[in-house]
Amino acid sequence: MEVLEKIRVTVDAMGSDNAPHNEILGSIEAASERKDLEIILVGRENEIRKVLEKQNYQLGNLSVVNADEVVTMEDNPSEAYKQKPNSSINIALNLQLENKADAFISAGNTGAVLASSTLKLGRIEGISRPTIGSMFPSEKGNVMLFDVGATVDCRANNLVEYALMGSVYSSYILGVENPKVGLLSVGEENTKGNELTLEAYELLSKSGLNFVGNVEGGDILKGKVDVVVCDGFVGNIILKFAESVLGLLKAKFRKLAESSLINKFKVGMAQSTLRQISKEFDYQYYGGVPLLGVNGVSIIGHGKSTPLAIKNMIFRAEETVRKRVNDRIKAVLKNRKINNNKNIK
Amino acid sequence: MEVLEKIRVTVDAMGSDNAPHNEILGSIEAASERKDLEIILVGRENEIRKVLEKQNYQLGNLSVVNADEVVTMEDNPSEAYKQKPNSSINIALNLQLENKADAFISAGNTGAVLASSTLKLGRIEGISRPTIGSMFPSEKGNVMLFDVGATVDCRANNLVEYALMGSVYSSYILGVENPKVGLLSVGEENTKGNELTLEAYELLSKSGLNFVGNVEGGDILKGKVDVVVCDGFVGNIILKFAESVLGLLKAKFRKLAESSLINKFKVGMAQSTLRQISKEFDYQYYGGVPLLGVNGVSIIGHGKSTPLAIKNMIFRAEETVRKRVNDRIKAVLKNRKINNNKNIK
Repeated sequence: MEVLEKIRVTVDAMGSDNAPHNEILGSIEAASERKDLEIILVGRENEIRKVLEKQNYQLGNLSVVNADEVVTMEDNPSEAYKQKPNSSINIALNLQLENKADAFISAGNTGAVLASSTLKLGRIEGISRPTIGSMFPSEKGNVMLFDVGATVDCRANNLVEYALMGSVYSSYILGVENPKVGLLSVGEENTKGNELTLEAYELLSKSGLNFVGNVEGGDILKGKVDVVVCDGFVGNIILKFAESVLGLLKAKFRKLAESSLINKFKVGMAQSTLRQISKEFDYQYYGGVPLLGVNGVSIIGHGKSTPLAIKNMIFRAEETVRKRVNDRIKAVLKNRKINNNKNIK
Repeated sequence: MEVLEKIRVTVDAMGSDNAPHNEILGSIEAASERKDLEIILVGRENEIRKVLEKQNYQLGNLSVVNADEVVTMEDNPSEAYKQKPNSSINIALNLQLENKADAFISAGNTGAVLASSTLKLGRIEGISRPTIGSMFPSEKGNVMLFDVGATVDCRANNLVEYALMGSVYSSYILGVENPKVGLLSVGEENTKGNELTLEAYELLSKSGLNFVGNVEGGDILKGKVDVVVCDGFVGNIILKFAESVLGLLKAKFRKLAESSLINKFKVGMAQSTLRQISKEFDYQYYGGVPLLGVNGVSIIGHGKSTPLAIKNMIFRAEETVRKRVNDRIKAVLKNRKINNNKNIK
């Protein structure tokens, strides 16, 4: 039997809206459930230890590394990298760089995690732009959308890289066989689209990936494909629009409930049923979204991450390391290079 | 008392998925309710008359103009304009051009209506790109999004034109006082965005419109502003994504209902409540979306338009004529020109 080394995950303890509380609680849960993990909380040590003591938790596979500085949601991402060299994000990534950790999770400033991860860990050779993916529920299975905000002005080859990395993620982490890739556009025909997508369509057709063509905005939730690629501007807007839908429904429900007692009862019933079906839309269960294309593992979570979300992010980070997602990406890139060279000859 | 001339609306009888049936029924309803309207059904006369006879409707303020050709949803918009000169769309627009009609509605091929309207009616002087708007429900009031697909690769000045036309529409048709305009982007700060929006932000700031800055994808349904502008690529994707949300909820409800008898009951209750709150999201009540920026009035409806939707589109067309939306747009453009000239001096 193969003896696996313990996978070491650093947790940005200062990231979430409710930091370090939720990070610590989530880490304790993860450490208790999975003794084969090593979890390293990175942040203001005094604050962290205070919470740990309150929880009366005996440190075993959970340790603390001090980081004096904290990146806030208001900090400019690239400035934070330089101006706060000792932030929990930077210190945690240093540990990965020094091979004292294998993966990193953060529910903090997404842009700062992206910038620091890219600058500290570097990019995978052959990838020009790292990407952040997001998971959407659908009528079939879960759909991954890349990019949701890492790069707002993309080139066509960036979209091909997203498709490639997204396919690897979908296949190895989500277990989808030969994932179908769609290019987000304004019509199914290959003549429909903007300058960027028309060019990307050509490149994707020759990419060797399971590219099925253009998909429209309505096809994401229909689950027509497993991986959808678009530039980070469009992806970010779709993601935030999607996150706001339940808010609108709740507001409308509230208004209806106020109109009469019977409506109040009906709304109560409806909301409970809606909660039942929307459980699987809940980011808490996804365990964050991956930042792909960097030479290491960074998992990004929602600012509102609960302890459960943090725990699942840790597990997702571990899985990304264990399933060697980056090696798979490198292998596909290498194969493509060989094939491209063959074609040139 | 001012004697108003009858407003004449042409109806593309061959547009919707259920044409000419729904168009005729909707036109009959509109003609019966509003004797001050003249409605002209344009399409294959024999087919139309057959349905009219079945309905046993006495033509009064409803007439028929023959058009032999039909544009289908599969037709390429700009080719259809040329290759089907006698399509119901082209013939109806000819009537407007010859001053035999004041407005046009169609539930047919959106691209074809856009292309023919622009080519036949021409653009309002000072408007480089016409735009199609769409109405979104929100936690506050209705929000108009421009553009949802007329132009996929926009320039910054196009977005300013959308903001200007959208403000006029919101103010005169939807009755919003001094409508707030937001630029769809990936962050609220003016430094956030892609190349297009960064440039548009500058122009909008100096536009004299009630521009409140960037809004994010999640702000549309929150009703943060009254008019949201973006390029037609992003707008079309958001629109189609939004239309697919109820489909996903229904699919999830169905799945839950199949799981047990009690869940079936709960889902039934929830769906009825959901229908109650989503009534106002229903495109049938909006009366179609406007194509703004052309020298005339074109209202575009959903391919699935019911007779009720057709009726409301006719009323919306009449209102757009009566409230002289195009004159208002021209007045704002003229004012801006004067101000710009003053600034130059």
